[in-house]
Formats: sequence, C-alpha cells, structure tokens
Amino acid sequence: MQRGRLIVVSAPSGCGKGTILSEILKEQKYYYSVSATTRQPREGEQDGVQYRFLTRPQFESLIGENAFLEHAEYCGNYYGTLSAPIEEHLSAGQHVILEIEVEGARQIRERCPDACFVFIAPPGIEVLRERLMKRGTETPEVIAGRVAQAERELSMKEQYDYCIVNDVLEDAIADFRTIVRAEELRCRKPAQQR
Amino acid sequence: MQRGRLIVVSAPSGCGKGTILSEILKEQKYYYSVSATTRQPREGEQDGVQYRFLTRPQFESLIGENAFLEHAEYCGNYYGTLSAPIEEHLSAGQHVILEIEVEGARQIRERCPDACFVFIAPPGIEVLRERLMKRGTETPEVIAGRVAQAERELSMKEQYDYCIVNDVLEDAIADFRTIVRAEELRCRKPAQQR
Repeated sequence: MQRGRLIVVSAPSGCGKGTILSEILKEQKYYYSVSATTRQPREGEQDGVQYRFLTRPQFESLIGENAFLEHAEYCGNYYGTLSAPIEEHLSAGQHVILEIEVEGARQIRERCPDACFVFIAPPGIEVLRERLMKRGTETPEVIAGRVAQAERELSMKEQYDYCIVNDVLEDAIADFRTIVRAEELRCRKPAQQR
Repeated sequence: MQRGRLIVVSAPSGCGKGTILSEILKEQKYYYSVSATTRQPREGEQDGVQYRFLTRPQFESLIGENAFLEHAEYCGNYYGTLSAPIEEHLSAGQHVILEIEVEGARQIRERCPDACFVFIAPPGIEVLRERLMKRGTETPEVIAGRVAQAERELSMKEQYDYCIVNDVLEDAIADFRTIVRAEELRCRKPAQQR
C-alpha cells in the first residue's frame, strides 16, 4: 500500500478554505487532523471532533514526550498537533489534511520537510496589486496599507508548495484534487530543505 | 503572462510515450522541442519537423556559442537541444515538452534544475516485452536489448519528479495533464538541487 501524504493547508480567513476542505473530506481517502487543546469545550463541541480536549498536565506531559508535531500557546491555552494519529493514518495509506496558520505550518515544515504545503488565497491579491500600481488614485495611506497586506500574504504563499486562488469554488476544489493526484504520482523525494 | 514550464519526458521505448504526447500536443498551450542533428534526413523527413538538420560545422559552431541545453554524439552524428527556441516559447507562456533519454535528462537537470521531470513507465517489464513482441517489427535480439535497456532506465525513475505508469492510456494522459496543472499551481521554487 502506498503511504499517504501529509497535506498542510493554510489560508487567510475568508478564503473559503472551510468550504473547499469540507468538500474534499467527503472522500474516504482523506483524514482530517484534529488539533489538541487545553481550552474548555464550548457548547456543542465534542472531544475528538472539533478538538481533542486535554488537561494542562496531560498536554505538558505530551510535550515532554515530544508527542507534538507543533504546538503553541495562545491566550493562556495550549494548541497542538499530535504526531501519532497522523502517522497512523499515513501508514494506512490515507492522506492527512492538516489545517493550520502560517507559523504552525513553518514549524511543521522543519519537522516534516516532505509534507505538501498548500496555500489558499482569495482572488484579487494579484489583481489588487496590479490595480494599485496602474491607478494609484487612493490616498497614500490606503495604498500603503493594501500593498503591505498584499505583500505580507504574497510572501507567505512563497513558503508553500502550491497556491490555489479561490475565485470559482468548483475550480478551487478541482485544483486541490489535482495537487493531491500529482503528489501521488511524485516519485522523486523532495530535496531536504524543501 | 505566466511563464511556461519546461517539461522533460523520458520513457523506455514501448511505453506509449509517443501516443500520450501526441494527444497532449493537440493543445495549443504546449510546444514540442525539436532536436537538432547532423545526421542526414531520411526520406519524408522535413527540416524543423522531425529534426533541425544542421551541418557538422554549423553544429560545432553552435556548441562553441554554448547554444545547446544538452548535446551528445551517437554513431558519428551530433544530436542536441537548442536553448533559444525553448526560452522563446517559455517566455511566451507555453509549456515546452522535451522528449529525451535518461542521460540527456540528467544533463538538462544540471542546467535547468527547475524543469519538471516526468518518467513514463510500462506497467511492468513483462508487459513491455509483450508490447514489443505484439508490435512484431523487432527481432528477438532487439527486443531483448530493449527490455534490458528498459530495466536500466526504470532504475533511473527515482531521478524524476513524477512517474506515470502507462497501464490504461486515458488514465496516463489524464495523469500527464494533472501533473502540468499542479505545476501551474506551484508557487514555491523547487530547491536548487532539484
């Protein structure tokens, strides 16, 4: 059986990442990596569905065992990705989808350089940049802010292997599947620094 | 306009590479790189179609100008790939398909580490042997030689980025298109040694 691929997905909010992934995850060949956290479950949240809810001592003990692929502390709570369930599903030939923000993705890149990193971008970053360059009718502050934002986002995507621009949802979903199929056809191991 | 990708394709003979490429090349977005050679045109061959036919002094002068991406001498004739037409079509946003054997591919990898290397493999060595026998145009000695050659070449597939197993032709063509689309979505530059 061919080992599955770890697919790390990041996107600025409002890119339609959730919609794309919920469509992709209908296929049995994917497993969605559920993060662990020490924050309290909110109403309706179930352990193992939205998050794996752990106590602080449990989480810290797992940190000590090097059980996390990445972890971080936000607002006094731990969040992290456990390695074991990912490894288990990859070995079983499933592709593991890991949804994470850019800093977490950077940590995972160090631990798993052969994972596949996908950035989902809103349409218009490139368009915005071109338009601002051509026109320049906005106030300097607005131009500066928008260019800075666009540049921050563009510089992030360069850290990823692939960038899907979510303009038409169906196309974005097809592009996602295309990337995964191409990764299945890959035979040369990516270079170490990738 | 997005720059095209250089797609280097190798396959043992009898893998259906020609059939796959002739289907792919129906699309305008691809340009097929025609090799240069000093060998005499055979009946029906046209300059610029099967080969660019050059005289030996012309070819050697171009070697001196470093005009070739790769070149080699077989049976007293030069064969080579000129850089300029490839660059021209890549700049125009076309993908350039470069069909070449494994040693030529290795040379190109050194000059163009960011090209995309695709290997087309038969479903198995036995299947290849059968296909060559069915074709009925080769002697048993030639078939044995080709199979041995294929075994050597198959061991090289790890040097390629992607491997397409041509079991069902339509699937192999779809896989080729999938790889190209994924490469269009690629945003991170491949590492230097790739």
